[in-house]
Amino acid sequence: MAGASPFDHAQRRDRLRHLLNPMDLDLLVVSRGVHVRYLTGFSGDSTVLLVGRATDLLVSDGRYTEQLARECPGLDVHVRPPSQKLVDAVPQALAALKAGSIGVESASITLAEMERWRELLPAVAWKSCQGMVEGLRAVKDSRELDEIRRAVDLAQHGYAQWRQAGFIPGTTEKQAADRLEFTLRGIGAQESAFPLIIAGNDGAALPHYHPADKPLPENGVLLTDWGAQTALGYKSDLTRTTLLGKGPASFPDTPALEPTHQAVQAAQQAAIPFLRPGVECSQVDQAVRQSLAKYDLEQYFVHGTGHGFGLEIHEAPWFRQGNPEKLQAGMVVTIEPGVYFPGRWGIRVEDDFLVTPDGGVCLSSLPRGLEPGAIS
Amino acid sequence: MAGASPFDHAQRRDRLRHLLNPMDLDLLVVSRGVHVRYLTGFSGDSTVLLVGRATDLLVSDGRYTEQLARECPGLDVHVRPPSQKLVDAVPQALAALKAGSIGVESASITLAEMERWRELLPAVAWKSCQGMVEGLRAVKDSRELDEIRRAVDLAQHGYAQWRQAGFIPGTTEKQAADRLEFTLRGIGAQESAFPLIIAGNDGAALPHYHPADKPLPENGVLLTDWGAQTALGYKSDLTRTTLLGKGPASFPDTPALEPTHQAVQAAQQAAIPFLRPGVECSQVDQAVRQSLAKYDLEQYFVHGTGHGFGLEIHEAPWFRQGNPEKLQAGMVVTIEPGVYFPGRWGIRVEDDFLVTPDGGVCLSSLPRGLEPGAIS
Repeated sequence: MAGASPFDHAQRRDRLRHLLNPMDLDLLVVSRGVHVRYLTGFSGDSTVLLVGRATDLLVSDGRYTEQLARECPGLDVHVRPPSQKLVDAVPQALAALKAGSIGVESASITLAEMERWRELLPAVAWKSCQGMVEGLRAVKDSRELDEIRRAVDLAQHGYAQWRQAGFIPGTTEKQAADRLEFTLRGIGAQESAFPLIIAGNDGAALPHYHPADKPLPENGVLLTDWGAQTALGYKSDLTRTTLLGKGPASFPDTPALEPTHQAVQAAQQAAIPFLRPGVECSQVDQAVRQSLAKYDLEQYFVHGTGHGFGLEIHEAPWFRQGNPEKLQAGMVVTIEPGVYFPGRWGIRVEDDFLVTPDGGVCLSSLPRGLEPGAIS
Repeated sequence: MAGASPFDHAQRRDRLRHLLNPMDLDLLVVSRGVHVRYLTGFSGDSTVLLVGRATDLLVSDGRYTEQLARECPGLDVHVRPPSQKLVDAVPQALAALKAGSIGVESASITLAEMERWRELLPAVAWKSCQGMVEGLRAVKDSRELDEIRRAVDLAQHGYAQWRQAGFIPGTTEKQAADRLEFTLRGIGAQESAFPLIIAGNDGAALPHYHPADKPLPENGVLLTDWGAQTALGYKSDLTRTTLLGKGPASFPDTPALEPTHQAVQAAQQAAIPFLRPGVECSQVDQAVRQSLAKYDLEQYFVHGTGHGFGLEIHEAPWFRQGNPEKLQAGMVVTIEPGVYFPGRWGIRVEDDFLVTPDGGVCLSSLPRGLEPGAIS
């Protein structure tokens, strides 16, 4: 468990509280774990936060008494007895608060929870809410940015150390992934930010690959999609595609590797001027697709252009076709164009950017080319 | 991703299908990821299974086409286009099946999903269902038992190797946990079965501890709660509390370590005769509490006695006070009594058992005493 958090959780809760009135709510039940953490600093689970017009109350249990005191000093806690389930403790705490109009996070509470709460508190006007805390979380404050920069730094140094150590012939993708995981932890990461993708050649042609028990190719491409998580839970997300040995064989039906890799890098660069407040997410996606289209590569780009990240590895905003959501200064996002040639190889290049009035500021500095290089 | 699975998924789906008629359902929407995996072998995400009276249909997307073909050969798949969300693809697939009475897994679908499905298919009679797939999963077949035995074996050998290597003075709990994680992966585990608990002295007095950046004590107790996960997703869950150096200091307000440790072991043994078909879960819990009470230790046992495990680390059955659920042959469970003295130290001893007509068969064989020993 972490110690007292460096973030201003009271301010975050006040920003959420200001959303209650416009939505005609007396109170919001915050039940998603990552939202509870964002609004209170509590890193455990099985705990719900009630944010009312003049109330902040955590509903938790005795296992967490000490941790709550350490991580969220000063916050009121309703401790349920071991014989009572959380799903029943929440309406009990709510009843004492006499709220008439209560919002729930409908994208995370289960149908069973809602049914139970309606049964126990039939007089309440329940309202399905979506995106309230997500919206706050999408814009990072300066302390969060420090933490994300640290997560990027850990990822970059871990990767450089891992590549520099090289691979014993016969090393499998899974073994290489485990070694990178251990390297990241060894230099100070809590753990990796997500299950690492280490893919050789045809594995790299699958955007959603998992490391297999097969040796890295002697000659080919190595796609590494990795990130680090700090002790406070903030993440980074990077991808590099580099050469192993002499690189992959040439195939008559597949474009040449080097110019294709440069086209992917160029597509990433094309997004940067669009990473400023007011630009629609779809425009960022479009900029990358148009850049790839110049090289007749658009059809091989089979996923979205990127996403926000922070306490979660995938969070708002989402760079997808048709998404009208507008960027705001302080959002932190990935830009990750890729092209995939099934059975042959794939290329993805992913970096982390801060949205600013002057366009995207890149938070990562590892060389992007086919040769794995040192951190600049 | 795993290859074709060794389990008989069609038989599992048929067992689920037989539950439809008694519940007056035409079809069940299986949306929980671990349930989809159990019923189909598919190890990816964002995929829903529809089980009707004469239908098995997966609703997935193009990213998983190849993986679905490999992991669930022969199963019908409805592939949604990238522009359509899963929450909208499910009712579209359902509409084509013309089911009138549809069950949903209310403990896992979100309120937002239910609201959307009701909106898109207003004529359907929706029914909240709980525990249908959980009930099937609670009883393991012989192939699953093989896999769980392998997970226990990996955990035991990894632990023995890790303890034998010893700890360099100054090694922190976090570093020791990372080393155990890496050891487990090195001998063939996919990864650890859950975030490992490595706790020295006062840390061991907290049942829900996370490894900290503080050195292991030179003299004291080391509590290790760990498990391994196989490539097919099956888990193990063990705890040992052993000596470091000369053991902890004596405290006038705390019982002596050695007899207390023996009392905890005795409490675990007391559960074994109760691990047979027809016994209520609460009786197992009670047997352990009564054994501890003989040594005036009952008040220090602040959590449940154990739980089932398999594809999840915590699943049915649950050994809790007041749980009337009855054991069945083929259930696989932990028995994990513990006593905790805040600020001093704690002891927990946890092993894995198979429920049989003759009582519990222990699947784990590591010595349970204060001295870490070899696997028998």
